Amino acid sequence: MDDILHASIAQLAAQIRRSEISPVELIETTLETIDRCEPQLNAFITVFHEESRERAKEAEAAIRGGTDLGPLHGLPIALKDIIYVEGTRSTAGSNFFSEESPQFDAALVSKLRDAGAIIIGKTNLHEFAFGVTTENPHFGATANPWDRSRVPGGSSGGSAAAVVAGCCAGALGSDTGGSIRIPAAVCGHVGLKPTFGRISVHGVLALAQSLDTVGPMCRYVHDVALMMNCLAGYDSRDVHSANQPVPDYTDGLDQPIRGRKAGVPKQHFFDNVDPEVEQIVCEAIKVLEGLGVEVVELDLPSADAGHEVTLTLLTAEAGQFHQERLAAHREDYGVDVRELLEAGLALSATDYVKAVRVREIVRREFVGAFEEVDCILSPTAPIPAPLRSTHDLSGGSESNRIRPRLTRNTRLINLLGLPSISVPCGFVQIENSDSKEGLPVGLQISGPWWSEKTLLQIAHAYEQATPWHTVKVEREAFSRVVKQRSKHPNLQ
Amino acid sequence: MDDILHASIAQLAAQIRRSEISPVELIETTLETIDRCEPQLNAFITVFHEESRERAKEAEAAIRGGTDLGPLHGLPIALKDIIYVEGTRSTAGSNFFSEESPQFDAALVSKLRDAGAIIIGKTNLHEFAFGVTTENPHFGATANPWDRSRVPGGSSGGSAAAVVAGCCAGALGSDTGGSIRIPAAVCGHVGLKPTFGRISVHGVLALAQSLDTVGPMCRYVHDVALMMNCLAGYDSRDVHSANQPVPDYTDGLDQPIRGRKAGVPKQHFFDNVDPEVEQIVCEAIKVLEGLGVEVVELDLPSADAGHEVTLTLLTAEAGQFHQERLAAHREDYGVDVRELLEAGLALSATDYVKAVRVREIVRREFVGAFEEVDCILSPTAPIPAPLRSTHDLSGGSESNRIRPRLTRNTRLINLLGLPSISVPCGFVQIENSDSKEGLPVGLQISGPWWSEKTLLQIAHAYEQATPWHTVKVEREAFSRVVKQRSKHPNLQ
Repeated sequence: MDDILHASIAQLAAQIRRSEISPVELIETTLETIDRCEPQLNAFITVFHEESRERAKEAEAAIRGGTDLGPLHGLPIALKDIIYVEGTRSTAGSNFFSEESPQFDAALVSKLRDAGAIIIGKTNLHEFAFGVTTENPHFGATANPWDRSRVPGGSSGGSAAAVVAGCCAGALGSDTGGSIRIPAAVCGHVGLKPTFGRISVHGVLALAQSLDTVGPMCRYVHDVALMMNCLAGYDSRDVHSANQPVPDYTDGLDQPIRGRKAGVPKQHFFDNVDPEVEQIVCEAIKVLEGLGVEVVELDLPSADAGHEVTLTLLTAEAGQFHQERLAAHREDYGVDVRELLEAGLALSATDYVKAVRVREIVRREFVGAFEEVDCILSPTAPIPAPLRSTHDLSGGSESNRIRPRLTRNTRLINLLGLPSISVPCGFVQIENSDSKEGLPVGLQISGPWWSEKTLLQIAHAYEQATPWHTVKVEREAFSRVVKQRSKHPNLQ
Repeated sequence: MDDILHASIAQLAAQIRRSEISPVELIETTLETIDRCEPQLNAFITVFHEESRERAKEAEAAIRGGTDLGPLHGLPIALKDIIYVEGTRSTAGSNFFSEESPQFDAALVSKLRDAGAIIIGKTNLHEFAFGVTTENPHFGATANPWDRSRVPGGSSGGSAAAVVAGCCAGALGSDTGGSIRIPAAVCGHVGLKPTFGRISVHGVLALAQSLDTVGPMCRYVHDVALMMNCLAGYDSRDVHSANQPVPDYTDGLDQPIRGRKAGVPKQHFFDNVDPEVEQIVCEAIKVLEGLGVEVVELDLPSADAGHEVTLTLLTAEAGQFHQERLAAHREDYGVDVRELLEAGLALSATDYVKAVRVREIVRREFVGAFEEVDCILSPTAPIPAPLRSTHDLSGGSESNRIRPRLTRNTRLINLLGLPSISVPCGFVQIENSDSKEGLPVGLQISGPWWSEKTLLQIAHAYEQATPWHTVKVEREAFSRVVKQRSKHPNLQ
């Protein structure tokens, strides 16, 4: 049964349609896997055991009755716990909302259900989705499935761990400064941060209004494309939702990428990168060159400034969103998030206006860059998954040092609202690590607004050209993670 | 010669091309008119007597040599004194820049010169273009040409007075909260605030970065269309400049507007409007109905909120721009502007973020409205030109009461970056006024982003249908203004 835990969405959907897999069996196996992995991973805040079983029976009945419920028919999908599901708590990684339940589904939940998906559970995250390394002070840390002494990245770490460990067929995360792509990179799966306004955030708790996006986190690029087909589109309830045409993201996904032009930034994106990570990413770029992609150097002198001001916008917007709650319940926030929010509340309008000015300058620079190239290549994160022990709840100096470094190549993309995909591209070998395979590294492919389809094509071509260091190695590791409970004396 | 002072740009250009008017004669007559009107109007801060004469000789020589210099060949154009002209002071209505000269031309100056225009002078304005009523504390008040006891509106009041009095063939103003449209309305000419990013503001001193626009101020709609052909387009030096296709604004200007749909807002735009102004605007709307425009009521419940938050953005952005200068030279600012800037500097990032949130909600509402209608109709200003005596330099309560009322229907348009044209639509009769004709009223026609061409067509059709209360009455009044020096005992 391990195979079905690590199969692609397309494979599973096809097998369900042909009655080779029963939705009931798939959901049951998934729930067993969750229950087996949770003591080690802590990837979930809420698991919908009973409701998922009910939905699976309905899905099975529908198949038997000849009704195709959609491209995600009967598939278990996990949601980061800031995405509202009617009638169940949506904690956002905080204690504030433990006792209340949203009275409506997030827009994307309706879309997933319309496509036949079964919402299997709500995943762990950083408090209020604000963070990339420190542990959640209320729900504990999620472990990185490759090495439980390491963080899964954030803030969508629970979704990432669930995807990699086979606890769902795919998951949804949110990305305000890298929170889909960083976990995808350090956990070793595919994560897409779509263009700002591409997927409705109606019913997703806000972090920072001008930066927030939600997107799919899956094991394969094709899965992400398939999820995009279900999720993308205009929604009048989200003020930032864009009324842009939605292409078919799977159609033509495997077309050759020969002739595409990719830029490798001279500035910022390759600064202060772990040498092994850099080497792996450079090899990945060579693979793309081998596929006919023309790679050129790209001048982005304002990228550093853009990285800096994103934090100004992020903390100011998050501060505004939390202002009243923070004033009334300061002690109920974790130290790390509280300090960030208070820093945001201390900013002046002048600080914010200056940051917006820089944003416009950086935007202009990237508009120019995208006249030259179809995409920008970089490491997603400049380091592999950091050790959990370096990140304590106090938000101390180590955390403050690691955060800007981990978000270095992702935050800037949110500043501009660009789409960006992280695809696994290799493993860094680490001494004394739990992981025999090493720790995953992600290649970030970022493009102009609304270029998700192109990014998916490039990522797909790369993935198909390199099964040796993605699918194959991961398969073995997945199995090991799932099985290790019975093999490892410390895992009970 | 009075005729050539009030002719349209197209007429003048055609006559110059046919050698019926000499550019030297036109410039000489214009300079004489300026010199004659300035003691009463104070519309200019700088007049380029000698340089204009030199340029006029060149223009005349070019015509004789068979060279057509462009659609504005030899025509005198005035510029609001925040628009840089290389080597001459650009005061922005302040004393700070009296001694220095920009080392480059504003983008639009180059474009005007490329079209053959002669820059005749730099017009008076509110200090730093920040205001609509109070007098400039450094350069004095500009008078309203219809009634010198009244303000010409602001901040582009000098340009408006110059256009109406025949001191130029057309002028450029800037509009951050209504500063083109309000003077156009209360002085009785046509003014277009283009879509944000449509005309480059490179070389135009900033007021508020997310709201600033520049645009043409002319006697006829066709003139504005012709100027737009010269001015619109992308400029990489302006970070907000948009790379949008530029239509030919004069081509098809006279096409019928039958079948167009116009919205009359239920909220905000007709609140607290002077009853006579309202009646005149309602008659104008009936004229449009007579031309086949379908007029419907429009629901814009967030318009009030949008009006409020525009001031937050405006003062915050202006405060940021002036922060260092204000700290170093507080006493050199007029009281009115200083108080506004200090209010902006006192705002928190949270205030700004909240305002941006409201902007997005209002934007969404207008996007919905523009799915229903081609344009929104309203009074440009809800009152005719206020008396100068109600506006002192101290920025006291009367000024603070009048400002939000005068900008009530214009500021909100800047919030969203929409294009909007003000076209003369009648005269309010005022007791004891200098003006026998009464005081002009403007009809504001606002449309979706990049709809300038449609707005010009509607304004042109209206103008052509109503010569009785625009062109004809104005012609007489223009002549009176120009001639009054010799008739009026107090005007020396």
